[in-house]
Amino acid sequence: MTGTLTIVGVGPGRPELMTPAASAAIADATDLVGYGPYLDRVTTRHPGQIRHASDNRVELDRARHALQLASHGRQVAVISGGDPGVFAMAAAVFEAVEAGPSEWRALEIRVEPGVTAMLAAAAEVGAPLGGDFCAISLSDNLKSWTTIRRRLEAAARADFVIALYNPLSKARPHQLGEAFALLRETIPPSSVVVMVRAAGSGEVRQIITTLGEVDPGTADMRTLVLIGSSATRLIAREGKAPWVYTLRRDVEGGR
Amino acid sequence: MTGTLTIVGVGPGRPELMTPAASAAIADATDLVGYGPYLDRVTTRHPGQIRHASDNRVELDRARHALQLASHGRQVAVISGGDPGVFAMAAAVFEAVEAGPSEWRALEIRVEPGVTAMLAAAAEVGAPLGGDFCAISLSDNLKSWTTIRRRLEAAARADFVIALYNPLSKARPHQLGEAFALLRETIPPSSVVVMVRAAGSGEVRQIITTLGEVDPGTADMRTLVLIGSSATRLIAREGKAPWVYTLRRDVEGGR
Repeated sequence: MTGTLTIVGVGPGRPELMTPAASAAIADATDLVGYGPYLDRVTTRHPGQIRHASDNRVELDRARHALQLASHGRQVAVISGGDPGVFAMAAAVFEAVEAGPSEWRALEIRVEPGVTAMLAAAAEVGAPLGGDFCAISLSDNLKSWTTIRRRLEAAARADFVIALYNPLSKARPHQLGEAFALLRETIPPSSVVVMVRAAGSGEVRQIITTLGEVDPGTADMRTLVLIGSSATRLIAREGKAPWVYTLRRDVEGGR
Repeated sequence: MTGTLTIVGVGPGRPELMTPAASAAIADATDLVGYGPYLDRVTTRHPGQIRHASDNRVELDRARHALQLASHGRQVAVISGGDPGVFAMAAAVFEAVEAGPSEWRALEIRVEPGVTAMLAAAAEVGAPLGGDFCAISLSDNLKSWTTIRRRLEAAARADFVIALYNPLSKARPHQLGEAFALLRETIPPSSVVVMVRAAGSGEVRQIITTLGEVDPGTADMRTLVLIGSSATRLIAREGKAPWVYTLRRDVEGGR
């Protein structure tokens, strides 16, 4: 039997946010490959299905392992948080394919999209991604901090809403603070900042603040950070957190 | 009974890409409000549920209508393609709330996220969004072409992968060509361009080409356009379209 490999986005956390197509891809697999906590989100057990859990820092190894299984005729699902194409497993799999044996190019490889953290975080607070936006991973494990700085500066100057993935970790605790300091050079301290932890899970926590007031110490690796554009606004509500949204149009005097 | 309003993302087209949470929100509604073709994607009929179809150009009117229904105690679902927060209905609803009567702020308003077109398009061809990326709507119905140009230039100079929504329409047939011309001033003609029409539907069609060769005439309003960064690569396959992916790391000599 010909092997297949499907890179499956299981969404941000709550099972109700995983698409039926993703659930079906998981049900059809003989082997599940993934980072332990993402595998744990797959609560449905299928008889005979094998789970291969790995830790989070070995994406290329995990991708190669999955490709080897598929090349031996297995039906493999690589389990990815959120959407597999956004700072997740899909790019690692294709990188492994390009560098790997030519028979891997004959495999049937598919990507099952999912709700990425940025969309779940935005939905929790309103519609902050209502205008043009960009998504930047602050992790410099694979790219240089110079590249990240350059993209932050460009995004701020062009008045994008900015979504930050992987804002900090134990190994790099200072990057989110540095990113905020850099953004303050270009955009006003009154700019809206939203930090949503564990968006789209059962245990979401959100902070709505400003670029001038934000404390980067309140974020961790599960936090998605959104920095508003000049068109991002708050709608005050009695006894509740404000809604945050971005106007679809330019604002007068906008950056 | 207190009215509620949920802005529901039905995903890119195929029912299997709509989340169970979105399906549940639709099932619970007494009234569905939306652009006709999006309403048509909701094939499950619920007894007594009322459908309010409108055309595509009246987003604020549609939002106000939905809010009025909710303020009269109805359980309203606003049906939005893709993800409601990305160039869709959520921002229009909150804009209407901010400008509307204060009692609208007391309504229970929720956003149900979905798979936005950019993610579905990327999944069709591989992992082109594997690096930092931005999303820009080329529609100048609400913002100026000057703003759009400025964001395109910034995105090109900072070497983002670029996703273009609403690339052109009958009323503005020249904007995608102008956008490509502008990008050619900064990024090389060899840059990968992907055009995916009706991504995530049953009738997807894709073109993989370069910035130097691309024909904007092959796009329409249902096309999602992706322009690669310096780290975007093709993996050739025998007898099949190449896979497209973006390296997670910087490339030497990258822009």
